Amino acid sequence: MPKTDLDQRCINALRVLAMDTVQQANSGHPGLPMGMADVAYVLWTRHLKHNPKNPTWANRDRFILSAGHGSALLYSLLYLTGYPLLMSDLKQFRQWESRTPGHPEHDPDLGIETTTGPLGQGFANGVGMAIAQRHMAARFNRPDHALLDHVIYAIVSDGDLMEGVSQEAASIAGHLKLDNLIYFYDDNRITIEGATAITFTEDVPARFRAYGWHVQEIDGHDVDAIDGAIRQAKAAPGQPHLIVCRTHIAYGSPNKQGTADAHGSPLGAEEIRLTKDALNWPSHEPFFVPDDVLAHYRLAAPQGERAEAKWRDLLSRYETAFPEEAAELQRRLKGTLPANWETALPRFAPDTGVMATRAASGKVINALAPALPELIGGSADLDPSNKTFMNGPGEFQAGSYAGRNLRFGVREHAMGGLLNGMALYGGARPYGGTFLVFSDYMRPSVRLAALMKLPVVYVWTHDSIFVGEDGPTHEPVEHVMSLRAIPGLLVLRPADANETAAAWQIALEHAGPTALILTRQNLPIMPETAEKARDGVARGAYVLSESPIDRIDLLLIATGSEVADALEAQKLLMERRVGARVVSMPSWELFEQQPLFYKLSVLPEGVLKRLSIEAGVTLGWERYVGKSGDVIGIDRFGASAPYQRLKQEFGFTAEHIVRRALELMAE
Amino acid sequence: MPKTDLDQRCINALRVLAMDTVQQANSGHPGLPMGMADVAYVLWTRHLKHNPKNPTWANRDRFILSAGHGSALLYSLLYLTGYPLLMSDLKQFRQWESRTPGHPEHDPDLGIETTTGPLGQGFANGVGMAIAQRHMAARFNRPDHALLDHVIYAIVSDGDLMEGVSQEAASIAGHLKLDNLIYFYDDNRITIEGATAITFTEDVPARFRAYGWHVQEIDGHDVDAIDGAIRQAKAAPGQPHLIVCRTHIAYGSPNKQGTADAHGSPLGAEEIRLTKDALNWPSHEPFFVPDDVLAHYRLAAPQGERAEAKWRDLLSRYETAFPEEAAELQRRLKGTLPANWETALPRFAPDTGVMATRAASGKVINALAPALPELIGGSADLDPSNKTFMNGPGEFQAGSYAGRNLRFGVREHAMGGLLNGMALYGGARPYGGTFLVFSDYMRPSVRLAALMKLPVVYVWTHDSIFVGEDGPTHEPVEHVMSLRAIPGLLVLRPADANETAAAWQIALEHAGPTALILTRQNLPIMPETAEKARDGVARGAYVLSESPIDRIDLLLIATGSEVADALEAQKLLMERRVGARVVSMPSWELFEQQPLFYKLSVLPEGVLKRLSIEAGVTLGWERYVGKSGDVIGIDRFGASAPYQRLKQEFGFTAEHIVRRALELMAE
Repeated sequence: MPKTDLDQRCINALRVLAMDTVQQANSGHPGLPMGMADVAYVLWTRHLKHNPKNPTWANRDRFILSAGHGSALLYSLLYLTGYPLLMSDLKQFRQWESRTPGHPEHDPDLGIETTTGPLGQGFANGVGMAIAQRHMAARFNRPDHALLDHVIYAIVSDGDLMEGVSQEAASIAGHLKLDNLIYFYDDNRITIEGATAITFTEDVPARFRAYGWHVQEIDGHDVDAIDGAIRQAKAAPGQPHLIVCRTHIAYGSPNKQGTADAHGSPLGAEEIRLTKDALNWPSHEPFFVPDDVLAHYRLAAPQGERAEAKWRDLLSRYETAFPEEAAELQRRLKGTLPANWETALPRFAPDTGVMATRAASGKVINALAPALPELIGGSADLDPSNKTFMNGPGEFQAGSYAGRNLRFGVREHAMGGLLNGMALYGGARPYGGTFLVFSDYMRPSVRLAALMKLPVVYVWTHDSIFVGEDGPTHEPVEHVMSLRAIPGLLVLRPADANETAAAWQIALEHAGPTALILTRQNLPIMPETAEKARDGVARGAYVLSESPIDRIDLLLIATGSEVADALEAQKLLMERRVGARVVSMPSWELFEQQPLFYKLSVLPEGVLKRLSIEAGVTLGWERYVGKSGDVIGIDRFGASAPYQRLKQEFGFTAEHIVRRALELMAE
Repeated sequence: MPKTDLDQRCINALRVLAMDTVQQANSGHPGLPMGMADVAYVLWTRHLKHNPKNPTWANRDRFILSAGHGSALLYSLLYLTGYPLLMSDLKQFRQWESRTPGHPEHDPDLGIETTTGPLGQGFANGVGMAIAQRHMAARFNRPDHALLDHVIYAIVSDGDLMEGVSQEAASIAGHLKLDNLIYFYDDNRITIEGATAITFTEDVPARFRAYGWHVQEIDGHDVDAIDGAIRQAKAAPGQPHLIVCRTHIAYGSPNKQGTADAHGSPLGAEEIRLTKDALNWPSHEPFFVPDDVLAHYRLAAPQGERAEAKWRDLLSRYETAFPEEAAELQRRLKGTLPANWETALPRFAPDTGVMATRAASGKVINALAPALPELIGGSADLDPSNKTFMNGPGEFQAGSYAGRNLRFGVREHAMGGLLNGMALYGGARPYGGTFLVFSDYMRPSVRLAALMKLPVVYVWTHDSIFVGEDGPTHEPVEHVMSLRAIPGLLVLRPADANETAAAWQIALEHAGPTALILTRQNLPIMPETAEKARDGVARGAYVLSESPIDRIDLLLIATGSEVADALEAQKLLMERRVGARVVSMPSWELFEQQPLFYKLSVLPEGVLKRLSIEAGVTLGWERYVGKSGDVIGIDRFGASAPYQRLKQEFGFTAEHIVRRALELMAE
């Protein structure tokens, strides 16, 4: 269908709104919206299945602006097609408490599917959504009842494709043959520093073909070519799709088109005037949109409502034919856990013997697998170590999308981005494992999970220098504290198998990301935890073992594997008539949320002799031990040796705790 | 040259030593050494230019075992070819204080070029070394005097190639046409979870060709093919080289060859016995090496000494012909800064007006550029924002390797790995910039810089929520504290232009990595800093402004952009007759290193009313404010708005500081 004058004006409306929005804020990125206006127009008016009146319709196509700095494009599209985002919101771009922040922030009620801006993340989120879509479809679709049947679209930039996280995600998407992905690459050959030719000269189409993607190359300003490429992508099964759109950044601007100047700064009033003239725009009035243009975009609402209505008919038929599945689908899309799911959680008797908390976690995962069909996850090529594999539910692979064990490969960062995408999609409760030291590789995605409050569970094992022989490259030291520093991330370092089960329960009930910090080495199962862990872990810290005499001389505050050492030290101190209370503190965040009286009941103000024991940096422990307390920790990198030797050398023994406690008592 | 029986036994010696080494430790990875023994043998005996008697010879080829888990291979090679690594060291594999830790740890005197283990890092280090080699050669080589003329070799694994950091590094290596790189890909199709077919099915050779690499595919057990491929790589200019070696993990093991079992566990005594039989090994005695095998490997030493002697002749001729260049080369390879270099550091007068510390940093970099020819660096596509560009020294590009401005592209993680590689190579003082929030993207490489004590400078700008309009995705909150948690990383958050100049001086004199934490927004240049900053910053914290009355009621402890607010608050408090001392604390690490008397002179024990002011998480500040103090910080994510508004909303104003100070005084 040839481009009409109305088409052209609709496209230019995106350019004009982006220019004006950025100019009004005196901050932002007009170049990408102006360059990708043609693609966005064709996609949003001819292909995108969505209902602006119900932005969270389960079977909508997803649209991700991975290049989040082009947010003015997304906001313009949402306004024009009739989402509850108003012209007044565009005028508040990048202002305090506006609905149009500098980069898109996850807000499904507004049609914003994910938070983007840190490059590469949106690309990976889309792959995660595509996995979730294929999985939910495999689980719930029935012949003639393709309830979940849609596409994940994204606009990705040079910057997105340079980032390693997108390269990892592209590789796994190709492996998994996720043909429900259609990505538009804004090939404008301009980055902030100048032409991409200064650093990015690889053959992108060939690279994506090597990953197993279906690649098309088009003129990104040719409406017919765009339309044709989308049709062709939809018709070509078995591969994810990349449509390379050769575009000009800031298209239409007489003096800034094709220049880095247009990337991250307003065009300026004069250049906007010249651009509007060049585009034959009918008015110089800021934010002016012709009525017929707005009306054309607003057709999206009735079209969307019709599409959703048709789908609701299908859903009704599905509910009749498959009532159990329909109820289960609703439950899962709502994110509600099944009734009494927690009864599946194992309890561990002390006489079970020693057990690493990673092993306990593996048992919990396998105990929960049948009870929680939404549980889906895996490891970044470490499942034998992370104990993340679910026996029974099979593997998620190209031929078996109903499987629930994911093989992320040695791609921690993409794993982080994929987990976010799965959580954003809904219906799944994703988890991912690696060694704690490699949480650094996925930290940018973890931060976004925290920012978006996504219910992702990280299974980070090998949680201290007691990794042992692998040495300092594999021994986390600073990680637990660095993770505690991330706002909104719940960090849990359980002390034994029962605390691990409790930690999993909390993680699955938590409306945000949770880091489970688990040992490689075996630990005793403490008699105290069978009874106390469930409530105690939920409160962040609790009295695991009271002072055995009628006063509290000292608080031993420990986390994770160090709790058992503290218990042993308590006994030895008793022989010296020192009454120590042992506090297990699996979570700072949960403890901070407790009422003051509870906090004081665990850490009484009058007891100033306090010793923290954690196999990690001591930075921060002053919060709980105070000026009169002391810390046992590790403020250097670890070393390669059997872990029992490291315990001796680094002072993580009951004897050393006793010595330090006695020194503290003597001060 | 056809493979002889001796060749075969030399190859098998690597397999046997790896098996025995791992078995002795009862921990480690025998599979890779056994699979790559043929490649390693051919490379180390026929191609690698090195001198085991002088492992740090400047013109040696570099060899990186990026797949560091195969450390037994590297240690075996070092022992066999006569480096100062002994058989007794092999027997101490993975033991406390041994010279053979679980993963290779940078030790140039032993021939260990870099610390590897976290996958992908060694790959990127090699690219950094190749950049440094090309740069030093362009600067110092003269016609007929090719002083620096060698290759960077690496063995890389499936895991290395799956990691995003290697993909970013591969892309930039191709762009820069670094034909001094020859990488061997151990294509054994096995990872820890099983066959690579479960997650890694992309066309690796095609991907590397897309990056612009020269790719060969060979049988990794065919000695002639290996030899031929290396020759061909050396003969093919203009592209980095990947030699894809199809191998069998644990080659020679009757029951474990080609299985994931052989990846990360000892083979077991019985399987070792069977393997030695299958390899026709002459003895079952552990660590047995036939004399002729050892003698053959040990030819490396005389060969290496001859090669180095020849080079020293060349160096002598160079010293005669180019005495100035020779002296300069020696100075740079030693890592000594030029005499009086610091006189080039600018001082900033308060009447200069306001200046962001990133802008001050840019002025420092440009003032130092002529004085410090070893300064080389750039930004991950943010130089207009990071102010990292040196005017004058030109760009490092394929046609201009003498240039000193690097274009890292939107590849923060590779930038981190490349900076490490450049620092490892020597002769260069590398720096790299991005937004502070994206330090997360490069954190695994930063950790390794700290572990290796590499003199890398990070120029991390846009250091707080006062980034403003870009919003929470671009606003660091937890980052400064999380970086302080990394052992050995020096973190400096200067308060104005003069503190920034002092911070740069400290960074360049520091024998380890330094993070410069710099503002986006303008700050006043404080009258106090022109005089006090040089010494004060070096001490980590100092009294910037004494209480204006004859007592100290209160300490205001601030860092970076918050120091100016504290100064203003001091004046307002004075109006209320509250005497506040303002302490500027740019570096916790440096302050902790001061003698106690100095620390107490800055933070007197008697002054318990203390208020910290830092636009980041408060976790950790209890260390300095104590129980009677208070903190002003940000324990949530930021928001999108002009930064002046954010200062109001988040309480970073003199008025709010005064209010909190008065509350504290009233307690």
